[in-house]
Amino acid sequence: MNAEIISVGTELLLGHTINTDTAFVARELSSAGVGLLYSCTVGDNPERLKAAVELALSRSDVLITTGGLGPTGDDLTKETVAAAAGKKLVLHEESLRRIEEYFKGRVLGETQKKQAMLPEGCTVFRNDCGTAPGCGFTTDAGKRVVMLPGPPFELIPMLKNYAIPYLTQAENAAIVSRIVRVFGLGEGYVAELIDDLCACPNPTAATYAKEGEMFVRVTARAADEAAAEAMCEPVVRELQKRLGGFVYGLDVESLEETVVKELAARGKTVATAESCTGGLLAKRITDIPGASDVFHMGCVTYANEIKTMLLGVPEETLRQYGAVSPQTAEAMARGIKERSGADYGIGITGVAGPGGGTEEKPVGLVYLALCDGDGVKIREMRPAGRYRGRGYLRGMAASNALDMIRRSLQGLGGVEQAAYSQMKKGG
Amino acid sequence: MNAEIISVGTELLLGHTINTDTAFVARELSSAGVGLLYSCTVGDNPERLKAAVELALSRSDVLITTGGLGPTGDDLTKETVAAAAGKKLVLHEESLRRIEEYFKGRVLGETQKKQAMLPEGCTVFRNDCGTAPGCGFTTDAGKRVVMLPGPPFELIPMLKNYAIPYLTQAENAAIVSRIVRVFGLGEGYVAELIDDLCACPNPTAATYAKEGEMFVRVTARAADEAAAEAMCEPVVRELQKRLGGFVYGLDVESLEETVVKELAARGKTVATAESCTGGLLAKRITDIPGASDVFHMGCVTYANEIKTMLLGVPEETLRQYGAVSPQTAEAMARGIKERSGADYGIGITGVAGPGGGTEEKPVGLVYLALCDGDGVKIREMRPAGRYRGRGYLRGMAASNALDMIRRSLQGLGGVEQAAYSQMKKGG
Repeated sequence: MNAEIISVGTELLLGHTINTDTAFVARELSSAGVGLLYSCTVGDNPERLKAAVELALSRSDVLITTGGLGPTGDDLTKETVAAAAGKKLVLHEESLRRIEEYFKGRVLGETQKKQAMLPEGCTVFRNDCGTAPGCGFTTDAGKRVVMLPGPPFELIPMLKNYAIPYLTQAENAAIVSRIVRVFGLGEGYVAELIDDLCACPNPTAATYAKEGEMFVRVTARAADEAAAEAMCEPVVRELQKRLGGFVYGLDVESLEETVVKELAARGKTVATAESCTGGLLAKRITDIPGASDVFHMGCVTYANEIKTMLLGVPEETLRQYGAVSPQTAEAMARGIKERSGADYGIGITGVAGPGGGTEEKPVGLVYLALCDGDGVKIREMRPAGRYRGRGYLRGMAASNALDMIRRSLQGLGGVEQAAYSQMKKGG
Repeated sequence: MNAEIISVGTELLLGHTINTDTAFVARELSSAGVGLLYSCTVGDNPERLKAAVELALSRSDVLITTGGLGPTGDDLTKETVAAAAGKKLVLHEESLRRIEEYFKGRVLGETQKKQAMLPEGCTVFRNDCGTAPGCGFTTDAGKRVVMLPGPPFELIPMLKNYAIPYLTQAENAAIVSRIVRVFGLGEGYVAELIDDLCACPNPTAATYAKEGEMFVRVTARAADEAAAEAMCEPVVRELQKRLGGFVYGLDVESLEETVVKELAARGKTVATAESCTGGLLAKRITDIPGASDVFHMGCVTYANEIKTMLLGVPEETLRQYGAVSPQTAEAMARGIKERSGADYGIGITGVAGPGGGTEEKPVGLVYLALCDGDGVKIREMRPAGRYRGRGYLRGMAASNALDMIRRSLQGLGGVEQAAYSQMKKGG
């Protein structure tokens, strides 16, 4: 089953909104075993939208639209798609009631009511986070059409809860997908280690790289969910065996999610002392709801005097080794652990660039120290390959810090040299 | 002149890479007065790419491709586009030399050399951040084609420095664009205030909303740059007059850029005390290169005891008013200013959700306090409209903090109630 996405919205063509919906829909389709061959974006223009819909219906099995379901005059997706597919729009009473409820007694304008007009005979997807419902239907030619709202906080739950089940139930097969997350190994290297697993047609295993990390997705297709799960299981176990301590989590979203969960499970806490990352590590930890159980305190000590004042880094250490040194990182980690009373203290210091580098301490040099009670572990990030910017470098430094905490929690050895220089191919 | 973007790359169709290139190219085209009518994404598949290129050349004046210029076997953009446009690929000696230099004497494989093969007669765009050059040419039918590499850190400088000048020089007109950035007013409200300016064909003024902020872009087209600039000037001044203190900057990228620049210009410093934002404010300040001149210290005081220990927030204040209160925010701001010796101290405390809300202190309630020497200013964010998630709420809290510093620096009055609930239309 091959799909195509049409994103509708002039704001996307002006570039002030980044199209994250397409990536989200693509990932969910891929998990569900649906291949995506094209995606395209058109503005709020009925002629161009009509042409795009006709093209999609001529070449793809499934058409998914995002955006243009709302109440305003430039929300034209339903009208245009229904006309292209030869369907009439009819009033869906339940959706109208839900919209009325949403506005709690205020008088509904015609434009609001328009949102309850849906293609005749369609399956309606309730909007649990807004007013415009989505829907799915099959054209006379047997093509499947799914329409979703544009705002991500409306689209994401509707896609997961209603649209994907709608698409897969028609498949008469259960699809189960598992994610094996890896930090510290390049995608190319992992692909070589597991190429035999990637060659298997069911379950499939595929590698993906993203911002200095990578993961393997294992997808099985079977008659029911239990059978599909059972097919994934041995492949996931084999991946864990081959990739060892570089696997940081199964079916999690991020290093910070793993770290917060593992700290909470063990009743442990962490405190952060950041220089070059400037608060990014604390921010990522506190991105996770419930972080307050495991994180009580962080310091951003950007100036040398503040490292001394807040963390007790000896002036002598700063003078002798400089702010960017393993000695300073260690003193920061020890200082924050002691002052906070946390089980883990982490210190980060480095040259994030673009300026400020020297021959001895180039842009990209970062030292991380983890004080975990057993002593202090140091990780060094050395610049390798080309400079990918301040944001990337700070992100990799925070990820390495999270990985050090994770390895300590899981009782694994450290990796001395951070493998952060996995460059993407050019072009 | 109407353009179309084709993004090439199977990774984009799997959804693990969000397509940020398209938004970036779209914005630059829009600044240059080029309208974008379509964008689409195809995988590394020559047949589908060929069909997409043929369609684009049949309906658009300009085709811009991103991705697929690299050395590997699935990098097929140049071959496919050149064939569709009836051009031969020939070796470009200078590009080959640059690639050889890049690899500093290592023996070049055929695949690396392939990157120097470019359409006959094209204008070559040097890749200042990688190996694969880009290029621009005109087809026999008078259509303009531009090919750019996929990685954003290669694409962005090439687009700005070579591709946009290449496209606009052909226009025989200078285009100048100014950005007026606004915080604290909704897009709809601003659009009403300036609708007469938006109706003018040259210079144009248009409003854009993005993550709780909005901006107005003024674009003028004239015979030369000086003339275009002179046309923008009175419109920008009029916008400043009508929008007053809600304009936080001209031709800047973000609130944090404005704040760091204005602090530096006045030789002032700021220190941060964060609870619910968990380091995000410090992170955003230190995203700006050179922040170390104006930011020396930040504290993330997630637990009550830490607020008392690090910032001296009285236990009595926490007991009587709670951690989420104007009193605690004020004590945090006073405490961080005093301990850091900075000119400005800012405190943030709130309920970021999704859990942790009560009837009295619901999810979304945030208090911000700024201590600037003259006293303390308080801003309250009250939940309004629907909850848009922890990330959005924390982002708005950090933006409000930056806006308070900015207003104080610019000698403006505060706004008591943060206008953070500007909801985007549904659908």
